[in-house]
Amino acid sequence: MNETQTASGEAARSRLGDEIVSRINQLATISETSEHLARIFLSPEHRTAADLLMSWMKDAGMAAHLDAIGNVCGRYEGDYPGLPCLMLGSHYDTVRDAGKWDGPLGVITAIACVADLNRRGLRLPFAIEVIGFADEEGVRFSSTLLGSRALAGTFDDSVLEARDANGLSMREAMVQFGLDPGQIGAAARKPGELHAYVELHIEQGPVLEQQNLPVGVVTAISGATRLAATLSGMAGHAGTVPMALRRDALAGAAECIVAVEQFCKADNAGLVGTVGVISALPGATNVIPGRASFTLDIRAPDDQHRTQAVAEIVQRIKAIAKRRELSLQIDVTHENRTVPCAPWLKAQVAEAVAGEGYGVFELPSGAGHDGMAMIDIADVAMLFVRCRGGISHNPAEHVELADADAGACVLLRFIENFKPRLPSS
Amino acid sequence: MNETQTASGEAARSRLGDEIVSRINQLATISETSEHLARIFLSPEHRTAADLLMSWMKDAGMAAHLDAIGNVCGRYEGDYPGLPCLMLGSHYDTVRDAGKWDGPLGVITAIACVADLNRRGLRLPFAIEVIGFADEEGVRFSSTLLGSRALAGTFDDSVLEARDANGLSMREAMVQFGLDPGQIGAAARKPGELHAYVELHIEQGPVLEQQNLPVGVVTAISGATRLAATLSGMAGHAGTVPMALRRDALAGAAECIVAVEQFCKADNAGLVGTVGVISALPGATNVIPGRASFTLDIRAPDDQHRTQAVAEIVQRIKAIAKRRELSLQIDVTHENRTVPCAPWLKAQVAEAVAGEGYGVFELPSGAGHDGMAMIDIADVAMLFVRCRGGISHNPAEHVELADADAGACVLLRFIENFKPRLPSS
Repeated sequence: MNETQTASGEAARSRLGDEIVSRINQLATISETSEHLARIFLSPEHRTAADLLMSWMKDAGMAAHLDAIGNVCGRYEGDYPGLPCLMLGSHYDTVRDAGKWDGPLGVITAIACVADLNRRGLRLPFAIEVIGFADEEGVRFSSTLLGSRALAGTFDDSVLEARDANGLSMREAMVQFGLDPGQIGAAARKPGELHAYVELHIEQGPVLEQQNLPVGVVTAISGATRLAATLSGMAGHAGTVPMALRRDALAGAAECIVAVEQFCKADNAGLVGTVGVISALPGATNVIPGRASFTLDIRAPDDQHRTQAVAEIVQRIKAIAKRRELSLQIDVTHENRTVPCAPWLKAQVAEAVAGEGYGVFELPSGAGHDGMAMIDIADVAMLFVRCRGGISHNPAEHVELADADAGACVLLRFIENFKPRLPSS
Repeated sequence: MNETQTASGEAARSRLGDEIVSRINQLATISETSEHLARIFLSPEHRTAADLLMSWMKDAGMAAHLDAIGNVCGRYEGDYPGLPCLMLGSHYDTVRDAGKWDGPLGVITAIACVADLNRRGLRLPFAIEVIGFADEEGVRFSSTLLGSRALAGTFDDSVLEARDANGLSMREAMVQFGLDPGQIGAAARKPGELHAYVELHIEQGPVLEQQNLPVGVVTAISGATRLAATLSGMAGHAGTVPMALRRDALAGAAECIVAVEQFCKADNAGLVGTVGVISALPGATNVIPGRASFTLDIRAPDDQHRTQAVAEIVQRIKAIAKRRELSLQIDVTHENRTVPCAPWLKAQVAEAVAGEGYGVFELPSGAGHDGMAMIDIADVAMLFVRCRGGISHNPAEHVELADADAGACVLLRFIENFKPRLPSS
């Protein structure tokens, strides 16, 4: 698969993969409980993990510090100090009962790449920064991307008043952690400090596995629209109301779910639609449901395409409700723009993939990532690493050592060959 | 509508309707709580209601007693004492938060008819018994038709060990009520004691209202099959799994629900199918459901037709599961045979309907009734009275005074013209 590798390259490759997997396992021991991996923003585990990451950064020849929001920031200077940087990274917080690869793989791989450069004494015409973002998942304060938003200068101060499950505000939690909520602005970077932001991440889906490829080039982080729909008809006795006289809210919801699936399946541009939550009331075996509620999650790698798809899906749902004489309440509950990966940057990632001997395969990211915040100060690209069975946010989440290794080799090749975009291009 | 009525008939009619509605309201005040009507088997309200019904029976010229299971039994002798009876009745227990017509209308109307005969000093060549069944709804011990099963001699003694929500067994509750659980067998009647069992009941559905008729002749109490189905696929991230790689259990369930509805709608023989309960797991907006469970309630006025329909529906569900690569668990959780109304008896009910000047309209009963137990010792017929909006098991359940009156007049005419089936016929 990789016949063109030099002997020294192969040695580096094997060394990177082993070290990455070993560190993934070491970081996974830092958890709220020993049974289930959970590393939550501004917790004692956050602090312990930050210290470990910073020690690895320093071992890799970087200067390392914790910034004003709790991101770990490592800097490897270029040919001379103070050059704009290529920023790499991912997050080191987790969901509850998490897998150990989602987030940490990107931080640890980037450190491993810098360590390899450092071992070889190699300096580049740009600095490299590796960021471990403190909160991407948003578990504690129900607000995601807190680390990358602070770094991008788009942190929303109102989140400081959000409270966790124990009633503690983010402001209070920051103080307990040893951070000054008044200083969050100090974490913000200026666009001129960065050439680009590039993130390696586990795919969290089944596409690369199906393609039999260890890595893939991300085209965009898909935007998402979430909706909540409620259909209301007439509850009735399951035995006494003939089919023709029914206004069955659940039968209507079922037709909507089938319609959403059909619509999205017919699309060839990465559209996905999911009904994840459903309920029917009153909810008895022998009662025709008078009310049915469901959620809709619609994503696409292009905002206009998604917006049109949502409009068409809503029209179809309205038509179903009207034909069935059901009343319909449908509302958008959440919306995220698409973050396209920059073509010039994506091309360099693709060159590195090809340079390592792998087929170049492009795919959108349906999941959200820190790039969604970083786009405000830098062009963004992502490299996906194959995920076993497409399983993520689950202890069974897994990356093969060979794939971790492949991802690191591609990232290292990308770094070594990185050419900042010309200001005029 | 009823031009052929005599003056005395019209007077009786008006008197019956007023009295029936007044007594329905009076009985409805006997309830566990004053906010919601609930009259539960073997409760203090059961006793109070029984005493009131027996006093009305006695006022109507009947001998009245409480039988071994708590049914109220009134007997109006025929031309001479001890003749076999025409048995009329319904139940006087309720669901929780009940309407006031479901059950009591049949008991109170039958008493009103006997009172009318009694006022006129009319004896018939058969006795009349009016039964108020103590438990048809099965709220307390999760087992229905306890009163009529005891009377039919098919009471299942194991139900005595069933416990209510407070942990009290039916055996203990009977003793507290003042009944002897060892004597339930004494409530059983012999088939030779009855010419027939005829029940007047609120329709609990919208069909008579749609037909613009106050009463309808029941063809059968539909049998029912209940099933529980679970589809299992693969949970996944709503953003990362392309449509073509999904095994979405809820999308599969939705297709099943639409298929059940289409199948039943295409039927012209009274088949109804309902999915009343649904759940999807894990149940998050952004997660593809890996598991979906739903119930199925299938009814038809003919057992063979229902059995075939259930088999076809199960085949369709299996085919959907197979095509979608979902595993399927589907089980029958409950089954009730159809109770056909006896043609000779149904014909006499129809004659009475026509005699009162109403169009004769036949319909199945999709809901269960005491006739389901009574069929074991007697031929059964039922007369339905129009139900406003088809709403039942709800405080909004309503019968118009004119319709209560029409039902009583039809029942009275039926009684006066009743001809027992010839032994050879």
